[in-house]
Amino acid sequence: MKIALIGFGVVGQGLLEILRDKAADLKTQYGFEAQVVAVATRSKGTLYNPAGLDIPALLAAADDFSGYPDSAGLTRGTDILDLIKTCNADVMVECSHTNLQTGQPALDYCYAALDSGKHVVLANKGPVAVGYNELVARAAQAGKQLRFEATVMAGTPSIRLALQALAGCKITEARGILNGTTNYILTQMEGGMSYAEALAQAQQLGYAEADPAGDVEGWDAAGKVIILARALFNSSITFKDMDVKGITAITADDVKAAAQAGEKWKLVARVTADGGSVQPMRVKLSNPLAAVSGATNAITYTTDLLGDVTLVGSGAGRLQTGFGLLSDLLDIYAR
Amino acid sequence: MKIALIGFGVVGQGLLEILRDKAADLKTQYGFEAQVVAVATRSKGTLYNPAGLDIPALLAAADDFSGYPDSAGLTRGTDILDLIKTCNADVMVECSHTNLQTGQPALDYCYAALDSGKHVVLANKGPVAVGYNELVARAAQAGKQLRFEATVMAGTPSIRLALQALAGCKITEARGILNGTTNYILTQMEGGMSYAEALAQAQQLGYAEADPAGDVEGWDAAGKVIILARALFNSSITFKDMDVKGITAITADDVKAAAQAGEKWKLVARVTADGGSVQPMRVKLSNPLAAVSGATNAITYTTDLLGDVTLVGSGAGRLQTGFGLLSDLLDIYAR
Repeated sequence: MKIALIGFGVVGQGLLEILRDKAADLKTQYGFEAQVVAVATRSKGTLYNPAGLDIPALLAAADDFSGYPDSAGLTRGTDILDLIKTCNADVMVECSHTNLQTGQPALDYCYAALDSGKHVVLANKGPVAVGYNELVARAAQAGKQLRFEATVMAGTPSIRLALQALAGCKITEARGILNGTTNYILTQMEGGMSYAEALAQAQQLGYAEADPAGDVEGWDAAGKVIILARALFNSSITFKDMDVKGITAITADDVKAAAQAGEKWKLVARVTADGGSVQPMRVKLSNPLAAVSGATNAITYTTDLLGDVTLVGSGAGRLQTGFGLLSDLLDIYAR
Repeated sequence: MKIALIGFGVVGQGLLEILRDKAADLKTQYGFEAQVVAVATRSKGTLYNPAGLDIPALLAAADDFSGYPDSAGLTRGTDILDLIKTCNADVMVECSHTNLQTGQPALDYCYAALDSGKHVVLANKGPVAVGYNELVARAAQAGKQLRFEATVMAGTPSIRLALQALAGCKITEARGILNGTTNYILTQMEGGMSYAEALAQAQQLGYAEADPAGDVEGWDAAGKVIILARALFNSSITFKDMDVKGITAITADDVKAAAQAGEKWKLVARVTADGGSVQPMRVKLSNPLAAVSGATNAITYTTDLLGDVTLVGSGAGRLQTGFGLLSDLLDIYAR
């Protein structure tokens, strides 16, 4: 399977580390052999070799592509859209920066990939949240696959659980803790920290961005709600259709009052066929979501035949998100 | 897909109810159409019609096959092994009574089905725990599928999560709450009941058998450990290789002491490549297993790329276990 990788930050590097370290296992167990033929970023430029790029050399040159050695067949500095259209990849893997408002420029990259006969696998939430219907239509027209496991709970198989493992059940609701930063902050506040202290610690640990608004005001979780609404209910809700509230108004006293009542504050994302929301809520200790602490994520699907099914796991991280991409690649390969 | 159903208790009836109620959905969504051609039990006899049996009539005659109406092509009272070998089913679904010591007579039914070119789907733990290697060998020889999702956590997709959704990860350990009866008893004891009172209530609710030894002494969970050892680690452990301890020695004082330390007693089943165990353990409230209360089950897989992934859901029930069978049938159909 020939791969064009768009975006080469933490997640893209995580995928390549996995492909490097697991090459032998993947071949033995699944007959899967991956070759990275193109890597493209807006800040560092592009590298393309139809005969395959060298993964250890790519990882060594991750910060500066000029460090990648010249070799026969290597092209540098191609326009990204041109590269996507003309390269010999079977699959485009999109893990560039997320823009939840426009999905761009990644959305155009996805269109170009599908229109030129390539499968598309995303870790980038933007294109899925903004352009899902058009992406599905173009994928169908091209007879190619569109996959986005890594957009919700990183590689923890939240999408695959819903669409494949629960096939035959009707899912009526999904609700969960889909943002690790806010859950980390709330967990630290249970331990006695103020909101400001907990946020500062989350930033220090790299969980929260310098501008944490996307996380703490609920927009990151809301983007995931939109993706789940499309994937589970074929429902085209947008940010405007949703009640979205973050955790910025939760005080140490609120957390204490909940604890005294045997409850915990959680930022709960919720989606049904009728809509979605992101709201801080007090949940009872008997709720599986109550035990989800720190940066961990969780999702509960309510189903007709099984009742509630809850999946708890990592929601971020280099290898965790890289695995989400790998699992989509393996699934496409197995078809 | 033509089905021969062996065993027609709660689980088999649950599957037929689902096939009856979801026939239209299953056809529309997955192109799946099931026909039950044979039903066989040792106590009630057998019914076989190569042109298909009537599902509502089967459910109405569940307690007494003489109530099933005569019709062209119907045969009654065939020897079960002969019926399995000669019927025109594509798949045998085995949900007769579990015998964890010998796997019989279900194990011979499975061999007969595979040897006569039928896929095998089991809710019955016995044959998988006792005869896994031979079953896998015969399935491979016949080019047929062997599936057993419903044997662990009913239809909650514990096996599928491990083998399919986590494909590409290396699982190093599985540990979980795999017996609902004991977890129900421990949960009631947290509420102040004695062990004897909680057991009596579990029996009254139908969770525990009149002879509860298989549950409360840990053997039911141990059977699931053996199945997971085979499926995840290709490891042929037996009951003799395992430390198995139940909950009969846990006292109200033990439960109280754990609560005071912010912990809970859980009967934890554990399996690695090196072996398995079933032991009552005190787990911290931050452990996802601590939040699993009542008759609910849960399993945590420790993986190389994702860290811990936990699945929480129903571990028993008519429709829940019936769905486990359906999900295996759908998966075989999709291949």
